[in-house]
Amino acid sequence: MTDFQRADGRAADALRPVRIQRQFTCHAEGSVLVSFGLTQVLCTASVEEKVPPHKRGSGEGWVTAEYGMLPRATHTRGDREAAKGKQSGRTQEIQRLIGRSLRAVFDLKTLGERSILIDCDVLQADGGTRTAAITGAWVAAHDAVSWLLAQGKIAQSPIKDAVAAISVGIVQGLPVLDLPYEEDSACDTDMNVVMTGSGGFVEVQGTAEGAPFTRAEMDRLLALAAGGIGELVQLQRTALGL
Amino acid sequence: MTDFQRADGRAADALRPVRIQRQFTCHAEGSVLVSFGLTQVLCTASVEEKVPPHKRGSGEGWVTAEYGMLPRATHTRGDREAAKGKQSGRTQEIQRLIGRSLRAVFDLKTLGERSILIDCDVLQADGGTRTAAITGAWVAAHDAVSWLLAQGKIAQSPIKDAVAAISVGIVQGLPVLDLPYEEDSACDTDMNVVMTGSGGFVEVQGTAEGAPFTRAEMDRLLALAAGGIGELVQLQRTALGL
Amino acid sequence: MTDFQRADGRAADALRPVRIQRQFTCHAEGSVLVSFGLTQVLCTASVEEKVPPHKRGSGEGWVTAEYGMLPRATHTRGDREAAKGKQSGRTQEIQRLIGRSLRAVFDLKTLGERSILIDCDVLQADGGTRTAAITGAWVAAHDAVSWLLAQGKIAQSPIKDAVAAISVGIVQGLPVLDLPYEEDSACDTDMNVVMTGSGGFVEVQGTAEGAPFTRAEMDRLLALAAGGIGELVQLQRTALGL
Amino acid sequence: MTDFQRADGRAADALRPVRIQRQFTCHAEGSVLVSFGLTQVLCTASVEEKVPPHKRGSGEGWVTAEYGMLPRATHTRGDREAAKGKQSGRTQEIQRLIGRSLRAVFDLKTLGERSILIDCDVLQADGGTRTAAITGAWVAAHDAVSWLLAQGKIAQSPIKDAVAAISVGIVQGLPVLDLPYEEDSACDTDMNVVMTGSGGFVEVQGTAEGAPFTRAEMDRLLALAAGGIGELVQLQRTALGL
Amino acid sequence: MTDFQRADGRAADALRPVRIQRQFTCHAEGSVLVSFGLTQVLCTASVEEKVPPHKRGSGEGWVTAEYGMLPRATHTRGDREAAKGKQSGRTQEIQRLIGRSLRAVFDLKTLGERSILIDCDVLQADGGTRTAAITGAWVAAHDAVSWLLAQGKIAQSPIKDAVAAISVGIVQGLPVLDLPYEEDSACDTDMNVVMTGSGGFVEVQGTAEGAPFTRAEMDRLLALAAGGIGELVQLQRTALGL
Amino acid sequence: MTDFQRADGRAADALRPVRIQRQFTCHAEGSVLVSFGLTQVLCTASVEEKVPPHKRGSGEGWVTAEYGMLPRATHTRGDREAAKGKQSGRTQEIQRLIGRSLRAVFDLKTLGERSILIDCDVLQADGGTRTAAITGAWVAAHDAVSWLLAQGKIAQSPIKDAVAAISVGIVQGLPVLDLPYEEDSACDTDMNVVMTGSGGFVEVQGTAEGAPFTRAEMDRLLALAAGGIGELVQLQRTALGL
Repeated sequence: MTDFQRADGRAADALRPVRIQRQFTCHAEGSVLVSFGLTQVLCTASVEEKVPPHKRGSGEGWVTAEYGMLPRATHTRGDREAAKGKQSGRTQEIQRLIGRSLRAVFDLKTLGERSILIDCDVLQADGGTRTAAITGAWVAAHDAVSWLLAQGKIAQSPIKDAVAAISVGIVQGLPVLDLPYEEDSACDTDMNVVMTGSGGFVEVQGTAEGAPFTRAEMDRLLALAAGGIGELVQLQRTALGL
Repeated sequence: MTDFQRADGRAADALRPVRIQRQFTCHAEGSVLVSFGLTQVLCTASVEEKVPPHKRGSGEGWVTAEYGMLPRATHTRGDREAAKGKQSGRTQEIQRLIGRSLRAVFDLKTLGERSILIDCDVLQADGGTRTAAITGAWVAAHDAVSWLLAQGKIAQSPIKDAVAAISVGIVQGLPVLDLPYEEDSACDTDMNVVMTGSGGFVEVQGTAEGAPFTRAEMDRLLALAAGGIGELVQLQRTALGL
Repeated sequence: MTDFQRADGRAADALRPVRIQRQFTCHAEGSVLVSFGLTQVLCTASVEEKVPPHKRGSGEGWVTAEYGMLPRATHTRGDREAAKGKQSGRTQEIQRLIGRSLRAVFDLKTLGERSILIDCDVLQADGGTRTAAITGAWVAAHDAVSWLLAQGKIAQSPIKDAVAAISVGIVQGLPVLDLPYEEDSACDTDMNVVMTGSGGFVEVQGTAEGAPFTRAEMDRLLALAAGGIGELVQLQRTALGL
Repeated sequence: MTDFQRADGRAADALRPVRIQRQFTCHAEGSVLVSFGLTQVLCTASVEEKVPPHKRGSGEGWVTAEYGMLPRATHTRGDREAAKGKQSGRTQEIQRLIGRSLRAVFDLKTLGERSILIDCDVLQADGGTRTAAITGAWVAAHDAVSWLLAQGKIAQSPIKDAVAAISVGIVQGLPVLDLPYEEDSACDTDMNVVMTGSGGFVEVQGTAEGAPFTRAEMDRLLALAAGGIGELVQLQRTALGL
Repeated sequence: MTDFQRADGRAADALRPVRIQRQFTCHAEGSVLVSFGLTQVLCTASVEEKVPPHKRGSGEGWVTAEYGMLPRATHTRGDREAAKGKQSGRTQEIQRLIGRSLRAVFDLKTLGERSILIDCDVLQADGGTRTAAITGAWVAAHDAVSWLLAQGKIAQSPIKDAVAAISVGIVQGLPVLDLPYEEDSACDTDMNVVMTGSGGFVEVQGTAEGAPFTRAEMDRLLALAAGGIGELVQLQRTALGL
Repeated sequence: MTDFQRADGRAADALRPVRIQRQFTCHAEGSVLVSFGLTQVLCTASVEEKVPPHKRGSGEGWVTAEYGMLPRATHTRGDREAAKGKQSGRTQEIQRLIGRSLRAVFDLKTLGERSILIDCDVLQADGGTRTAAITGAWVAAHDAVSWLLAQGKIAQSPIKDAVAAISVGIVQGLPVLDLPYEEDSACDTDMNVVMTGSGGFVEVQGTAEGAPFTRAEMDRLLALAAGGIGELVQLQRTALGL
């Protein structure tokens, strides 16, 4: 057992306040500011009428993502990756994850030979930036698809299901949902889970930060995640008026 | 004479609606979202207790800036500079300009051997991103200085004066203030002017995009700029409650 | 049910032939050529009497890894990353995973303020290069620790447990262990699992390549992985004469 | 008032000795060594029968510039940008300025779909390298155009006017023309002015290095610059035998 | 005269034990592990049905090489070039040498418009990596040519002659053949010689490390090299069963 | 025998007109413009009171070189290496050669713990740029040493001997000295030879461009080179007034 109390007084299985603001900026086909507590990520979806080389002539489209963090999104200022001249391993790992998660719910054939590029830029970070990014990216992508439908460029939606993501972890023995930075940096086990609206798993990435974790712990974490993602998918749908 | 009417119905000498929101993000010592019409720039000021090599041991501080644009801040998506692995010439030119403009109103001796780093990230672009950035950066820097004073790290403010910036240009023969993208891309002459609160010039950068411009035209543009900057400095002061 | 037969005739829960050759090269403190079937990875462990900046003065050591693939380790030649001037996202993701996995079984305090750098270079690839790398890297690191003990540089081993890794996946409905390239590129779900000798989980990375996967499928995959890793840890111990 | 005397005894409104040597190297279509006092810049103009992507198919040509400085052109040796792997912000700012200045006097339609690339390499630096570069670049470009005419590749010259540049500044209260390094590093205000042969302004870039400058000071500086550029244009014409 | 005795007891004109293992890895059209004593280089030859731009449409093929060294191939670990983001001057010099040496014995017209890319990766280094690489690369290229013949892609071999390489040097006054690292780092003169099977010179690269060398010394070194290369060519032929 | 006549009417063993201009630029401790016919290289020698890491605390100095070519030094414009962001393999190979050649005649102990950096920048290229660079670099280095002596920073010269370099080659069967670009690109064998004033060999780099070359050909080429270098050393001494 554990006496651990969350700093913000939340229940172990409660999400932070989640906000999904569409049309946050005006130029992109989809533009969503998503907040999980203090974490704020601007997700824009851009439609381009071309595909990367490995899809050319295939009749299929592509969905990909880039991720960035403003230098002072964090407590102490980080180096600007554009100034350093390269993206960190962490950045690349996250943007690959976002891209795979989105593609898992897209029918690329129905999208046709065009691309949706998702940019996820963290304006303010307090843990869970990648899970907020995936959750917001899907809403932005949905708006971009609505734009494609409205423009008559596609006849039906290539989106097969919703996708959302949440972090879970074990802090001082307590399995908790949606970790802010303070919990994230203190936890023993950290897991990011990506699931579809219908409850299938898209990605599970669990890491033992301190001691290895057991099957029983994993089971509790996966259950927590499933609950949280269920709520997130509902919030996505509400935001979209579905 | 000219029949040119501005698309948004503004008078030739009118600013777009300007908004200066302080404490837009929570981690930075100063954090300002500045809008000139649709142009939105997030300016954060970070205090670091170290200086670049050329100032070490001098007893003087440093103020510098970095500039970036989110890929979909613009009408069509631009490449992410972190992904390309280098900052464009335009980016470097703008961040050098912002840094010089801020330093023009800072007493680096009074700041002491520490740095204020300004990050100006464009969330949405519609012309005038560099002038909005300078205008917002000064407010963010002012907040960082207030934080330094409140922390007792400095005894008096190193800020000697306000600084703000505006664009002016000649569109179809009409000298106009604060050009949105549409006017900027169509203008014959484009000038960015940086001035202090007491009306001194810090930077004047005029470029003939089409035909060369005359002394008489420059005089009219400088007068327009001086008027606009006077208003901006007032808005900065109001935002800071000065 | 499924009629899927593995191309090499293996049972669904069987590892490919695993070989662990120590002292494969002569300069490194630990040097292991590990083979999982046709996949061959050279893992060397280098001891350096310094630590990265974030550990300086901490009294603790560091264990990290780099990963590379010879250009013609694969069926068609890949670009040489040194010639392209940067490591791919995939490379960085894998080397971060190897480093985390090793650190999970190291007591960095006992290691003292020195580093063990693991280089994992794929000479021949046929799926599972990251899992073979982790499995071989632990043996190489163990040899480097034995060298440190023999040199009298440390008094007791900082290694708390063994660590090994295996891939599992679902191919045409059949959960299988240790996927070669052909199965890997055709599978619906791909999961890499890293576990300790005592059966704790260090990393679980599951990805739905086609359809999302269910909790029941994940359970079957984790059970397969646990069995395979048990065998690998035994092979590691045999190779080390423990 | 001021007692400031220029170190080289020049009048405040006098240029340094200017020399324009054509055909300094043998391969380029135009090759000019231009000297403003000790500042020496080699300007070559290369004709290429292709245009950058944004001009392809437009029927219009392009004029652009690159700028470099030999490592020991300066008093203390600077790093070689090719060895560092990137061009500094200053370099990029200058080469963009040179390109814009040249394009201001070119009719790109008359040039036809081909490019003139100007390379400005500083062999010896003593202030004013960018203004010498622009002044010499125009002469080199003129020679390249003469070559195009002689080759029958174009029927009429795309050059609409001359263009030249000079620096002006305020040193110890005295407005002076054409500042060598010593004055440049000590001045309060530094302005680079680019004008056409017929007296139109192409670029005005004024920077307050110390105290902000006034409208009255700017007026005096612009008048100085206009005088100096008038002389430079005459020297360009003499060099070309026009 | 000299009393210098080689550490391994070899005669001055003796090669180290040389081993040439074909089919060391399974994917490449040619794959050879070559050892000169402790120096081990994996040479793979990859056939690609395309040529670099300067050969397109020429009807001729291309043969080129890349060289790398695993980080811990050496006594102390070297930085990974892919992580540093660039190849050293030494790496580029060696891979250019290998490419030129191979092309000297290839008829590029007979090869047809395709490429053979040789990758030479040093697994273990003890001096002479470039000479072992050239010697092994020719065998790997020969296997790739046999594969092309067997596939019916070419009707006759483009290989005109064998090519092999060896180092010679003067250590403490004694001219010696095939220097290991210890001799190489202590020698006065170091020479790498590349010759064909019929005894023609392809490359001679002699460097005075300490005192300059004389014509007489060069003559003795070239004679030593010719003898060693004669043996190497015989070993290449034996390995190929010719 | 051969009927080959050199395009410029020179005898096979004649140098092109050689010119060595000292004090070509004013800031460097040594500054030499060297011409071999149309090939012109500016060689500057810069003294720095520091050494690279591998020499720190050794009491010894260092001599090194960098090489560059202005984009339009050649018949068609080459890319600027600073803009491409990296130096080519050829550039690195040449600058390493120049550095080694200079160090062969320097006593680094006598130089003391300081560096001489030689920059060799090709203003105009017509073959033989590396040999002209070495020849001019030695004169520039000699001037830098004279400056060090005059400043009283060293008591005696660290220069042990002169060093110069020349190309030789076989064109249409005729061994010739000092090849211009036209001969260089057509020759069968190309050799660069670096020798000291007293006739010792420092570097010999011979390459078969077409057919392999024989010992007899090498002997003729080395004799030609020795003659040419004897003349060059005399010209170096004359330029220095020795």
